[in-house]
Amino acid sequence: MAKGNCLVAQSGGPTSVINASACGVIQAALKSSEIGEVYAANHGVEGILNEELFSLRAEDPFEIELMRRTPASALGTCRYKVKKEEDFARIFEVFKAHDIRYFFYIGGNDSMDTTNKVGAYAQKIGYDLKVMGVPKTVDNDLPETDHTPGFGSVAKYIATSVREAYLDMTAYNYPMIKLIEVMGRGAGWIAASAALAGSKNLETPDMIYLPEVPFSMERFIKDTKAVMEKRGQALIVVSEGIKTADGKFVIESYTNAGPKDAFGHVQLGGVGDLLTKVLREEVCKKVRFNNFGTFQRCAAHFASKTDSDEAYMAGQKAVEWALQGNTQKMVAFDCTRNPYKCEFKMVDLDKVANLEKVIPANWINEAGNHVTEECINYLRPLVEGEVEPYIENGLPRFTHFNKVLIPKKLDRELVKG
Amino acid sequence: MAKGNCLVAQSGGPTSVINASACGVIQAALKSSEIGEVYAANHGVEGILNEELFSLRAEDPFEIELMRRTPASALGTCRYKVKKEEDFARIFEVFKAHDIRYFFYIGGNDSMDTTNKVGAYAQKIGYDLKVMGVPKTVDNDLPETDHTPGFGSVAKYIATSVREAYLDMTAYNYPMIKLIEVMGRGAGWIAASAALAGSKNLETPDMIYLPEVPFSMERFIKDTKAVMEKRGQALIVVSEGIKTADGKFVIESYTNAGPKDAFGHVQLGGVGDLLTKVLREEVCKKVRFNNFGTFQRCAAHFASKTDSDEAYMAGQKAVEWALQGNTQKMVAFDCTRNPYKCEFKMVDLDKVANLEKVIPANWINEAGNHVTEECINYLRPLVEGEVEPYIENGLPRFTHFNKVLIPKKLDRELVKG
Repeated sequence: MAKGNCLVAQSGGPTSVINASACGVIQAALKSSEIGEVYAANHGVEGILNEELFSLRAEDPFEIELMRRTPASALGTCRYKVKKEEDFARIFEVFKAHDIRYFFYIGGNDSMDTTNKVGAYAQKIGYDLKVMGVPKTVDNDLPETDHTPGFGSVAKYIATSVREAYLDMTAYNYPMIKLIEVMGRGAGWIAASAALAGSKNLETPDMIYLPEVPFSMERFIKDTKAVMEKRGQALIVVSEGIKTADGKFVIESYTNAGPKDAFGHVQLGGVGDLLTKVLREEVCKKVRFNNFGTFQRCAAHFASKTDSDEAYMAGQKAVEWALQGNTQKMVAFDCTRNPYKCEFKMVDLDKVANLEKVIPANWINEAGNHVTEECINYLRPLVEGEVEPYIENGLPRFTHFNKVLIPKKLDRELVKG
Repeated sequence: MAKGNCLVAQSGGPTSVINASACGVIQAALKSSEIGEVYAANHGVEGILNEELFSLRAEDPFEIELMRRTPASALGTCRYKVKKEEDFARIFEVFKAHDIRYFFYIGGNDSMDTTNKVGAYAQKIGYDLKVMGVPKTVDNDLPETDHTPGFGSVAKYIATSVREAYLDMTAYNYPMIKLIEVMGRGAGWIAASAALAGSKNLETPDMIYLPEVPFSMERFIKDTKAVMEKRGQALIVVSEGIKTADGKFVIESYTNAGPKDAFGHVQLGGVGDLLTKVLREEVCKKVRFNNFGTFQRCAAHFASKTDSDEAYMAGQKAVEWALQGNTQKMVAFDCTRNPYKCEFKMVDLDKVANLEKVIPANWINEAGNHVTEECINYLRPLVEGEVEPYIENGLPRFTHFNKVLIPKKLDRELVKG
């Protein structure tokens, strides 16, 4: 007999495989005789606060399966940060109203913090709840896990596109600089993944600038001039989050700070434009600036199968472990290299929440403008394999849910923002 | 017995399938008993002027075959425009020195003009040369052909990425605008291809702004406000080449004109930044601007098989027809829709050179901010099928040529720039 209902929610920025994790949770939960209804929160924790839930039993199993090939958040996401006591009270009001006894939250650093606090609140009020965090973040910056679902796919896309961009550049024989800006606010993993683009006959990128290394404009210009002298062309990858020695974002140091998001983070972007201007003035008139923007985190058309499969299995593991009675844990990866092997382990959420894993100093070259072979060796298995898109009329077809919201049981106004 | 040697060269901006066309030429030429050596010019017409040729018989047949899955220009390209009498004299000096009797030039509008002039010059000086143009351009703006190799792949990539970007946006439930800038200086075909992203459960993009329609900032703001009121979010695709009613590029009308390229074209880019600023001030604070940059023309990792196969066959046809004695022609496509059928035809180069095919007015909606079903019907077959990348270590592996240049026979200094 079912011990209660299950709720799954997604949070934070989209990735190519957050839906694969959700699919893992949903399919495992639907199969379990101990779980009654399997609900999703419409747009993450906001869906809980608003009591906007929909049933996965009511959705087409094909569409659920298609989540494994669908980017972004099929359930809907949000950036709302649960902080107030009032929010937690409301969450448990909704949980009680719908007899939620299993809660699976898929998200990044901030969301693991929320998951942890939800677990703690349950303990505090003596509400029997198994709560599990399933990690996701393109940034790969969660601690206590070899890597994070979502990262392998962005790494594959970046490395592939950088390789294609290199061919685009070297097709010409003119002096030219290609400057490519990628995501990565605090950790440079995405930028580092560009190093995979290189191979025996394909020496690229020339430089990778990481948030982990204090950025010097003088050295940047000097580095670039040296490459231009040697090769006549340069391909440079720069992380959006590069900082000057004083810890300020480069774009802040050289311009006025941008607006801040709901978490108080400075909204980045623009550092590539700044560096383009500098390079045009100081090094070479022909600078092609490219920015992947949000495309990089959603390029499911060329996602890593390793990443997608691991993301799916992480979702399944979360359910398995919750059913075994575990709570307030995150599914993490324990991996070896050469050969690559990935095993699942449980870690305490409080060891993860709000901590950031950056690139180790000894994985960055001495000049501070590239990564080492050891780093590349770490990255390589994560991009292996291709998720085959489900093609209709020449284009990937993605999950569509009807999202018929279940009747509300609470009449209280929603708590929001 | 061989009647002479063959030279193949690529020109203009890279595409995902220009190498497929070159491969078609090369493999057909290598097979023909009437052709002796098969040379490539290193970096297009500049390679001819510099007498920098390399032999395809000296390259690994596997690498040649891999051209069908390699973006950009494996032979090398240039943007040099052959204009001066002196240049033509030099070209034929090189042709004579290496007994070039077949010349295949793969390129866009400007290159078809060059090809035509090379043919005319041969006639003028009584030099027996069969010269054929093989079209390529991501812009799809060549006349006399249903469509152009290179376009189908960028269309597939744009439509796919726009669909992914739509999911990225709708994953959130906040007011948000996604503005996506795509290539297309004079013709809006690339922007139009974003319309393929839409489907039954996926109404996107909301608006497409084309160079063919005079752009009004007031109407743009009004259009966007209307969508935001109705849907709360908007996804807008804008061509880099949109112009105000006076024929000026929008970015010129609102800012200072940018630098010009070797052909006297204004170097575009920046219109997306401008419109982002306007939308933030007038419509919605949250505007995510994305620009595919040069990635769109080189995304061989998700190229259209229809496009790639047609590009390959166009190369083969060019050789076949040249061997039959034809000259000064371009390979063009004659196609039907529903069912789609593509046949090859020869067209006179002077009917193509320097002309631009834009989107017909009746394929643009009345409001001037989207395309019609007829246009979508035209586009749909061009994105069918996927070119499977040749994967090594999780990433596409591309053609690498050794490019050992053959000994020069002329001692004269090169003519350049």
